[in-house]
Amino acid sequence: MDSDYGIPRELSAVQKLRSQYQPELPPCLQGATVRVEFGDTTTSLDPTDAHTIGRYFPHTYGQPLAHFLRATAKVPGAQVITEHPPFRVGVVFCGRQSPGGHNVIWGLLNALQVHNPKSTLLGFLGGSEGLFAQKTLEITDEILATYKNQGGYDLLGRTKDQIRTVEQVNATLTACKDLKLDGLVIIGGVTSNTDAAQLAETFAEAKCQTKVVGVPVTLNGDLKNQFVEANVGFDTICKVNSQLISNVCTDALSAEKYYYFIRLMGRKASHVALECTLQSHPNLVILGEEVAASKLTLFDITTQICDAVEARAAQDKNHGVILLPEGLIESIPEVYALLKEIHGLHRQGVSADRISSQLSPWASALFEFLPPFIKKQVLLLPESDDSAQLSQIETENSWHIL
Amino acid sequence: MDSDYGIPRELSAVQKLRSQYQPELPPCLQGATVRVEFGDTTTSLDPTDAHTIGRYFPHTYGQPLAHFLRATAKVPGAQVITEHPPFRVGVVFCGRQSPGGHNVIWGLLNALQVHNPKSTLLGFLGGSEGLFAQKTLEITDEILATYKNQGGYDLLGRTKDQIRTVEQVNATLTACKDLKLDGLVIIGGVTSNTDAAQLAETFAEAKCQTKVVGVPVTLNGDLKNQFVEANVGFDTICKVNSQLISNVCTDALSAEKYYYFIRLMGRKASHVALECTLQSHPNLVILGEEVAASKLTLFDITTQICDAVEARAAQDKNHGVILLPEGLIESIPEVYALLKEIHGLHRQGVSADRISSQLSPWASALFEFLPPFIKKQVLLLPESDDSAQLSQIETENSWHIL
Repeated sequence: MDSDYGIPRELSAVQKLRSQYQPELPPCLQGATVRVEFGDTTTSLDPTDAHTIGRYFPHTYGQPLAHFLRATAKVPGAQVITEHPPFRVGVVFCGRQSPGGHNVIWGLLNALQVHNPKSTLLGFLGGSEGLFAQKTLEITDEILATYKNQGGYDLLGRTKDQIRTVEQVNATLTACKDLKLDGLVIIGGVTSNTDAAQLAETFAEAKCQTKVVGVPVTLNGDLKNQFVEANVGFDTICKVNSQLISNVCTDALSAEKYYYFIRLMGRKASHVALECTLQSHPNLVILGEEVAASKLTLFDITTQICDAVEARAAQDKNHGVILLPEGLIESIPEVYALLKEIHGLHRQGVSADRISSQLSPWASALFEFLPPFIKKQVLLLPESDDSAQLSQIETENSWHIL
Repeated sequence: MDSDYGIPRELSAVQKLRSQYQPELPPCLQGATVRVEFGDTTTSLDPTDAHTIGRYFPHTYGQPLAHFLRATAKVPGAQVITEHPPFRVGVVFCGRQSPGGHNVIWGLLNALQVHNPKSTLLGFLGGSEGLFAQKTLEITDEILATYKNQGGYDLLGRTKDQIRTVEQVNATLTACKDLKLDGLVIIGGVTSNTDAAQLAETFAEAKCQTKVVGVPVTLNGDLKNQFVEANVGFDTICKVNSQLISNVCTDALSAEKYYYFIRLMGRKASHVALECTLQSHPNLVILGEEVAASKLTLFDITTQICDAVEARAAQDKNHGVILLPEGLIESIPEVYALLKEIHGLHRQGVSADRISSQLSPWASALFEFLPPFIKKQVLLLPESDDSAQLSQIETENSWHIL
């Protein structure tokens, strides 16, 4: 292991084989000619939010959606761009690593080179900290050689996932101006893409020439909608997890005496848990969205699990595998309310050891009911997006004890 | 998931591909002719044990070693066996699953069929419990079809790993006689192979016709010596673990702010940790054998780890991956002595909550020094081989806290 950025490294046999894979570009992104049709204006997912979002993003909300077209598409009025000036683009990894990060950079370099060989791609070293400090590495095909199709963010590294405070935003603005960037590409999850949207608005307001682009790459699999079929990394994450879950299923079947509880990443979304369920066929999965929609309580979920265990026992099967998304804990109404109270007290500056004494009577009753290690974990400071530190809450161990 | 034994099952694309692999037999096991040379008598690893072992195994200790020869070997005096009567053989999975278990059964069936198509292979259902209760499934090529080259012990299942008490040994003797077995093959690790050796002695004494054979298949990788190059499963275990460790290394390199402590199976032996180190190149590994040989204390090991962290920090690398074999905890002299005291008190019938008050002053001092969760874990009842419940002791979390 070595943390020198962008140095060529020795690849294992399987890594070499993997590096030879040539991902296929969608037809609309092939070649040097860009065909684009501008369509309806952007809207909010929930129409009742439109007004608020419009007010917070006056320069960027409501712009027309850009549809990129394949060469064979016949769309009257589509813009056809064949001449591309040389671009200077910066790219930064924000937040936790997810599969496919290095390939986003590869695709970016490839597109820039195809459009104009004089274009430049600068990678920021050490994530957002490198962006603020203007630490860059010019990305070339040689540098990418041993990182193509390889996991991790170690080509450039990453630090904090936030570009949010006035200092951070100003440092970013200064970096983009100093480096004369035409574009800034932020590779990250929900938090980073939210920051990217805010940054685009701020840049537009400041009449900064740098266009901000967010690329949805996240291990949580929670960035998808009508326009984003799945985020980068989702496929690999589900396959790798499904392989491990399947191994655990085989162990459960062999030993015939264990119930395995497996917690999967995903924050508020249970997409990873659902896809892994379809791929690996565990005995039970509790989906956060269903729990939230049906307002299932801790007691309801416990009953569901116990019923499943009982039904299997009646068939003489005293073993099984149960998947739980990490966001489940926040989907349970009473736990969500408890977490909200705790985070509210955090914001008021109440220290962790004094929080339990300041909870409302019902929240306190639930808190006291929880096993000691979960108590400690729900008292942790919330994440930068105000959700609980889900990766630190051992939901999978709770039902062992309840 | 379904626990009906031996039923054909649906394989995924990768499982189908895997099932087509044809393992190569060593030349000495190819064909229907068996060539065997009887050599020196068996001895004990440590010559000072020879007398004791000879006394406990009067019928089986000191028999000549059998060397199987390839067809081209010219060894005067070698026995050549071309006629094989039909055999009836039973096979049972004992102890925790390890890769390669199903293939041992495949190889066994194949050898029996090649030697005499009238031979029969009976699999005991549900491990040693099925052996005692004489629950069998006749193994055929059809039944094996979807289990070839596949992990797990789910073709037959497994339960407890012991064949040791008078009742268990007698039930086994009765089963072998009732089923007219010429051979009983026990697939398992250290405990099961110890039981197999004892069973062979008991059977010989009882003039039972059934030959007992132990096959070293264990996830701990701790069954190897001059005659056993590596146990079945070792290669797969090290490769699968190395892949996961390498992923963690990539994460450490990408985030550049975490130290990962990874605990690996292996009981008293650090073979798995060592092989994974060679394959995945973590920053540090602590080998149990070295700790025991150099009599390193908890303080020494902590100093070693801190020195490594400090040396890396001096190079501006505040991240890394450290491998710890699960047996490490028993290799540390003062912890070993503490565990011996605890297990001694267990044997005297002292309940777990009263053990800490009955420890010797120095053992008590060490015990009180340990973090609460480790305290709880070292108080667990020892395993059937009298070692601590290593899989339950979170050694990898200790150094976070120390």
